[in-house]
Amino acid sequence: MEGMVERWNVGILLFPEVEVLDFAGPFEVFSRTRLTGGIASRLSEEAAPFSVFTLARTAEPVRATGGLVVVPTYAFADLPAVDLLVVPGGLGTRPLTKDAEMLDFLRGMATRVRRLAGVCTGSLLLAKAGLLDGRRATTHWASLDHLGKLGRDLTVERDQRVVDDGIITSGGVSAGIDMALYVVEILWGREVADETAHYMEYRR
Amino acid sequence: MEGMVERWNVGILLFPEVEVLDFAGPFEVFSRTRLTGGIASRLSEEAAPFSVFTLARTAEPVRATGGLVVVPTYAFADLPAVDLLVVPGGLGTRPLTKDAEMLDFLRGMATRVRRLAGVCTGSLLLAKAGLLDGRRATTHWASLDHLGKLGRDLTVERDQRVVDDGIITSGGVSAGIDMALYVVEILWGREVADETAHYMEYRR
Repeated sequence: MEGMVERWNVGILLFPEVEVLDFAGPFEVFSRTRLTGGIASRLSEEAAPFSVFTLARTAEPVRATGGLVVVPTYAFADLPAVDLLVVPGGLGTRPLTKDAEMLDFLRGMATRVRRLAGVCTGSLLLAKAGLLDGRRATTHWASLDHLGKLGRDLTVERDQRVVDDGIITSGGVSAGIDMALYVVEILWGREVADETAHYMEYRR
Repeated sequence: MEGMVERWNVGILLFPEVEVLDFAGPFEVFSRTRLTGGIASRLSEEAAPFSVFTLARTAEPVRATGGLVVVPTYAFADLPAVDLLVVPGGLGTRPLTKDAEMLDFLRGMATRVRRLAGVCTGSLLLAKAGLLDGRRATTHWASLDHLGKLGRDLTVERDQRVVDDGIITSGGVSAGIDMALYVVEILWGREVADETAHYMEYRR
């Protein structure tokens, strides 16, 4: 199977005070998707269409919201090729919207990845980097108004859990799971996405 | 607010090859629950009725399924008082069902905590430790038959996401979020649980 699958590298951004489910939901979906269904296929990586890792500014452990401590797989300086970059949200996005180095990093990545996705208030970072200019996008319900002010000609979608206008954005926290299942579906089809949701006992 | 709330210590067990969403879902729910609703209340711990941490056999980083690396808050030897112990599932439960030291640890904890909860195949560990004897319980759909063979007089519930028969158990992976919201509801009421789900944009 491995030889047959062109596996995508999925990089999930971590930063201090990233919201736990914002990154853990997509991590779960992408790391547990299998092109052949069932439980046995999850015992190995053979039928896995994604290779998932975390990345952060440095290799130091990152403290997520609530105090969960995660060791990133890669620092920015050591990053391998990324096909899909996932930008989660959380309280930690607030200082980052004023962090020129982080916004530059995101703009640079946007030119190199195949797809870029924001979860929850991760959309605010993408908007502040100018990446959502002229696009439709969404975010956590409490930040919808704020999102509209961060981009030029940015149309805020208020009633969709997942919006794909070239760059993919999702609603708050648990909607990151739907974003990830949406990506599985556009790349590998409805059946693979639904089987992954069934494995996770997640109701899409 | 802090003085008014009797805060529960929630300990979430980690082990090699623990399923990511099994522990991250409950971590998200318990760490983000607030007794006063809205976004502003999430900027501090003041109205937080739970103090959440992870625990593992040693303080060494733990590699969860898919390669997410988490640094546990406490090793078993340094554990503070735990009010609610959450036992997640994942492939890593397979060797642990034959691990006398881990089963002893769970039996000991069961005598000291106020509530004990299993997520997904975490139920298999609780059953193997004898803690589900004579009780109703559930687990991931693929392990329902196996669960029935691990306890004495254990009744397997096949159609419920959350089962509470003294010890709380839940279905697979994402059902751990429902387990956590159920605990929020029995301790703090429906309104607090629903508001937390709304904050997370999770459809109960």
